[in-house]
Amino acid sequence: MHPLIISDPTLRDGSHAVKHQLTRENLELYSRMAEKAGMAVLEVGHGNGLGASSLQLGESLLSDAEMLSICRNNLRRTRLSIHVIPGFATIHRDLQAALELGVDIVRVASHCTEADLTKRHIEYVRGQNRTAYGVLMMSHMASAEVLGSEALKMQGYGAQAIILMDSAGAYLPGDVTAKIQYLCSILDIPVGFHAHNNLGLAIGNSLAAAEAGATILDGTARGFGAGAGNAQLEALVAALHHSGRDTGIELYALLELAEQAEIAFAKAPKLGSMSIVSGMAGVFSGFVKPVERIAKEYCVDPKAVMVELGRRKVVAGQEDLILEAALTLSQQA
Amino acid sequence: MHPLIISDPTLRDGSHAVKHQLTRENLELYSRMAEKAGMAVLEVGHGNGLGASSLQLGESLLSDAEMLSICRNNLRRTRLSIHVIPGFATIHRDLQAALELGVDIVRVASHCTEADLTKRHIEYVRGQNRTAYGVLMMSHMASAEVLGSEALKMQGYGAQAIILMDSAGAYLPGDVTAKIQYLCSILDIPVGFHAHNNLGLAIGNSLAAAEAGATILDGTARGFGAGAGNAQLEALVAALHHSGRDTGIELYALLELAEQAEIAFAKAPKLGSMSIVSGMAGVFSGFVKPVERIAKEYCVDPKAVMVELGRRKVVAGQEDLILEAALTLSQQA
Repeated sequence: MHPLIISDPTLRDGSHAVKHQLTRENLELYSRMAEKAGMAVLEVGHGNGLGASSLQLGESLLSDAEMLSICRNNLRRTRLSIHVIPGFATIHRDLQAALELGVDIVRVASHCTEADLTKRHIEYVRGQNRTAYGVLMMSHMASAEVLGSEALKMQGYGAQAIILMDSAGAYLPGDVTAKIQYLCSILDIPVGFHAHNNLGLAIGNSLAAAEAGATILDGTARGFGAGAGNAQLEALVAALHHSGRDTGIELYALLELAEQAEIAFAKAPKLGSMSIVSGMAGVFSGFVKPVERIAKEYCVDPKAVMVELGRRKVVAGQEDLILEAALTLSQQA
Repeated sequence: MHPLIISDPTLRDGSHAVKHQLTRENLELYSRMAEKAGMAVLEVGHGNGLGASSLQLGESLLSDAEMLSICRNNLRRTRLSIHVIPGFATIHRDLQAALELGVDIVRVASHCTEADLTKRHIEYVRGQNRTAYGVLMMSHMASAEVLGSEALKMQGYGAQAIILMDSAGAYLPGDVTAKIQYLCSILDIPVGFHAHNNLGLAIGNSLAAAEAGATILDGTARGFGAGAGNAQLEALVAALHHSGRDTGIELYALLELAEQAEIAFAKAPKLGSMSIVSGMAGVFSGFVKPVERIAKEYCVDPKAVMVELGRRKVVAGQEDLILEAALTLSQQA
């Protein structure tokens, strides 16, 4: 069996949980302890990735360059990774600077049916002799066959691994098994899985992915991440070790890392009603807060708004549809 | 497919989370809302079951009779259930009184290799024309074959269902699948599963149980329960509905119930380092607090004590072995 690569986006997806206000001290401590625990990969940056700090998405306390420099200084064996959504991150402003700062792995992401958008960024990274992964976000919205053809495109651009993201936490273990098995059967490169916990299945789905052939798994300390959070890293690693899989991680050092992260992040993510409904509806957790606000304004049930958004298959960036959905529901009432 | 029976022990296993101090108001509100949501079964009492309120295990704020009477008054379609460990609950003092108060289902529990101990209690309940289940606790400690022969004994005594408890949260989904399938293949009565979340797998394991043939699943609001907690009821029901299974529960009413429970219980269970290590070691979560206290006293790592207790295969009631394990480790250091 191939060794599993655990990729830790606590300092990227986790930063959603603190509105991107991670401090210099948080990054210093976390990156030092991650290196010590033998983490394979540490992903760092704004919650929405490189170049995404903005008035609309929330401004990071520290710049991309500051965050990457701090972590770069503390990492030796652990590889430094970034999440890159073309559109937020430009090649010649953001990506070039990040590579100059010593980023090892660039994960270039698009909505699961829009792999074309990742071509230039993946090719640029490969041209600079760095590692590039392709990331398919909101992957529950496409069939195994569609995901397969999008992943093949990314492989064609030079991607060295494909990561399926369950951005809305909408998968059941059987879905994960089927899609990961299919991707592994048609690709020549490793496949990974990034879980969210909206239905309480982040760890269960990650184990299903590993059994189906995924060799890269994402998890964050205490599950810190957008909405209901990610797969809780230390529980994931414990469960993998318990099942006889190796991760190269020293578990007790990882447990300490998670305890420190809990102090830094102040409170753990919560699996509440709106997270659960967003998981069932297949809507990204980032919609929860604006949905709650707008539903209150229009005196409609925020859960009904979420279900309506699910029916309309919304993706991040379409937050204006919340208003439309709330208005429709308020007129029906 | 058989309909799934969801059994909710929030007012029993959940009471561990508040040291058995559930108030009259908590019970009134929860039982009324559970009935409204269409819960099939509500399990009520001290965390360790009927007759277990004591100086050693913690005293309940309310007596068994008070708790059962309050809930009985509010339940119509929802059946009232109790957890009974022979030794804590006597037949002629505790069990007779509970049946007189109108309990519908009595779940008679023993360590997974000691089904013999449940014979008299199960036979008594059946003689009184009430429903009796057999419960095998700490079931990760026995093979499928051993669990099978113990379950057959319980079936022979008259048990009308067998519940496998993952008391230490030590199972992986594959273990659950294998054991539930085996039990379903040899028993004539329904099989159920009661999860704990020490490895973050409570929901994943519960879904695996349902797929393997289990038709009774336990879950508690927000996961309230001993240690790392149980399967989070509302996420479990959402995931089951998402997978096309029916539970008879009105999900939105259940989400409201869980929100109210969160207010009553004040804080959600946490999946911290010691919970994770206890899950890997296969030690019941109730050991966590005394282990932390004694390890500190002897200046040894509480995680090492937990692993040592797992090696010695301790079960509840053997807390005196903590001291012995800590002493041994401190002498090795």
